[in-house]
Amino acid sequence: MHEATWIDRYIVPLVTAPGAARLRDDVALLSASGPMIATMDTIVAGVHFLADDPLDTVGQKLVRVNASDIFAKGAEPAEALLSIAWPNRGVESEFAALISGIACDLEEFGVGLIGGDLVGTSGPLTLTMTLTGRCINTAPVRRSGGSAGEALFVNGEIGWGGVGLRAAQDGGPAEHAQRYRVPRISSLFAAQTVADLATASMDVSDGLLLDGARLAAASGCGLEIDLGAVPLASPTENTSEIVSQCTAGDDYRILLSAEADKAVSGFTAIGKLTESQGLRLFHHGQLVNAPSTLGFEH
Amino acid sequence: MHEATWIDRYIVPLVTAPGAARLRDDVALLSASGPMIATMDTIVAGVHFLADDPLDTVGQKLVRVNASDIFAKGAEPAEALLSIAWPNRGVESEFAALISGIACDLEEFGVGLIGGDLVGTSGPLTLTMTLTGRCINTAPVRRSGGSAGEALFVNGEIGWGGVGLRAAQDGGPAEHAQRYRVPRISSLFAAQTVADLATASMDVSDGLLLDGARLAAASGCGLEIDLGAVPLASPTENTSEIVSQCTAGDDYRILLSAEADKAVSGFTAIGKLTESQGLRLFHHGQLVNAPSTLGFEH
Repeated sequence: MHEATWIDRYIVPLVTAPGAARLRDDVALLSASGPMIATMDTIVAGVHFLADDPLDTVGQKLVRVNASDIFAKGAEPAEALLSIAWPNRGVESEFAALISGIACDLEEFGVGLIGGDLVGTSGPLTLTMTLTGRCINTAPVRRSGGSAGEALFVNGEIGWGGVGLRAAQDGGPAEHAQRYRVPRISSLFAAQTVADLATASMDVSDGLLLDGARLAAASGCGLEIDLGAVPLASPTENTSEIVSQCTAGDDYRILLSAEADKAVSGFTAIGKLTESQGLRLFHHGQLVNAPSTLGFEH
Repeated sequence: MHEATWIDRYIVPLVTAPGAARLRDDVALLSASGPMIATMDTIVAGVHFLADDPLDTVGQKLVRVNASDIFAKGAEPAEALLSIAWPNRGVESEFAALISGIACDLEEFGVGLIGGDLVGTSGPLTLTMTLTGRCINTAPVRRSGGSAGEALFVNGEIGWGGVGLRAAQDGGPAEHAQRYRVPRISSLFAAQTVADLATASMDVSDGLLLDGARLAAASGCGLEIDLGAVPLASPTENTSEIVSQCTAGDDYRILLSAEADKAVSGFTAIGKLTESQGLRLFHHGQLVNAPSTLGFEH
């Protein structure tokens, strides 16, 4: 790899934001029209994606795990900085595939690439993105704004991360594996809903039960979840199979709290925040023991 | 490594910016009082630092390579996001040392840590920092603003990266090795000078000759450098030893252009921008052949 050549060939063509000076400078001027937020996620081959995942899908995942955080806070993705630690024996065609996936989803989510770094490594492919976002309101919607009595909502389906990973590892349905490799995430429409209605919000990345417990704890509440109400990747009446999908993680859906009588377009009510602390699970009105592991911390 | 525990134990204590919500949320609210810039640098064990460098010095280097870019643009370091890909067999005391070095220099340069990520890796320690900066003027000073006839200035000494690396590898003087591990960088005072006087500016990270050629090219100029005028880590009259120090890189000093009759406090005049393109080196008034490699691209 010759960094400067690869940057010119693959990365500079993605750069259009005037503040980025076509990557010909040392820093980017950040755009800022109102309150801005930032998130940073790193994904490592063999940890956050499979070492044999096609690299265009890895590039898409990198953008999505970051954009999901921005949407979940009631904000619009704005500008990205990208760091690639590229394995010393990696070939240029693979690099081009990675960049094509990144480019595809930067465009999909309206993100301008404004800077970053490209280095060689003796280790696994390691990708880091810093993504900024423009708040729709004057501040991001935090995890901590919920109150007892409010309802808990989620959009999309929960469990695709786990169902899809199994398919990718065991040669299951290709469309399921694809849901692991390129997670479906929320859109600006959902971010607008968060900004309009949510008292607390976050993306579900480590498992619905774990992230739900975190949102409730940050809000000083406990929570109840009706397992029968959770929209699932693989619908089932089997309680332990539901719990499995609710703890698998890699969902990248939005979990939010809102006033209980609100209709939240595109979201499904799955429970409520409570005064008494801790997590209580119900299925068909019966209390269900919470699993010992609520999710996947990574 | 248990990510959540290590984040709570080592990283949360560094976080004071209100927009960071004590890292209890998914995003940070960026501070913005006027035009903001951002830079991102990644350093990898065995590439950008020696695998046996003490990790507190590695943490300092991570902050410094980023802060140097911000100062060189006429801006004040503001807020950082930090990604650590930590080797699976790394021990907690080493992690604590890394964080202590980062904390030391975040404080040194007045930077608030506002977010980031911590992941495990089967590869070498890989550190990425995104650093924002507040422009002293309404925009960063670019590489591209220089004009023929202006003088070229540098602060501090050139060559410590190379001299220090040799000392670190060969058991040379400890104070020289330290200059490689924890480079001295510029300060807010120098950033103010950049903002007040520089028409073009950048930090010297890949070698004075290479970075000088880049600044000149970005400004549509050529340049002349008087090798005898360059302040050196290891002063010498030997032309090839001067060239060696001017191509070693890892200097993290500021190179700027300014009107030729200006006195630039803290900086030394070492040459000028010219109408004729390309790099010309002089020593005692004699033209010197430019080396085939002007610096180190990394």
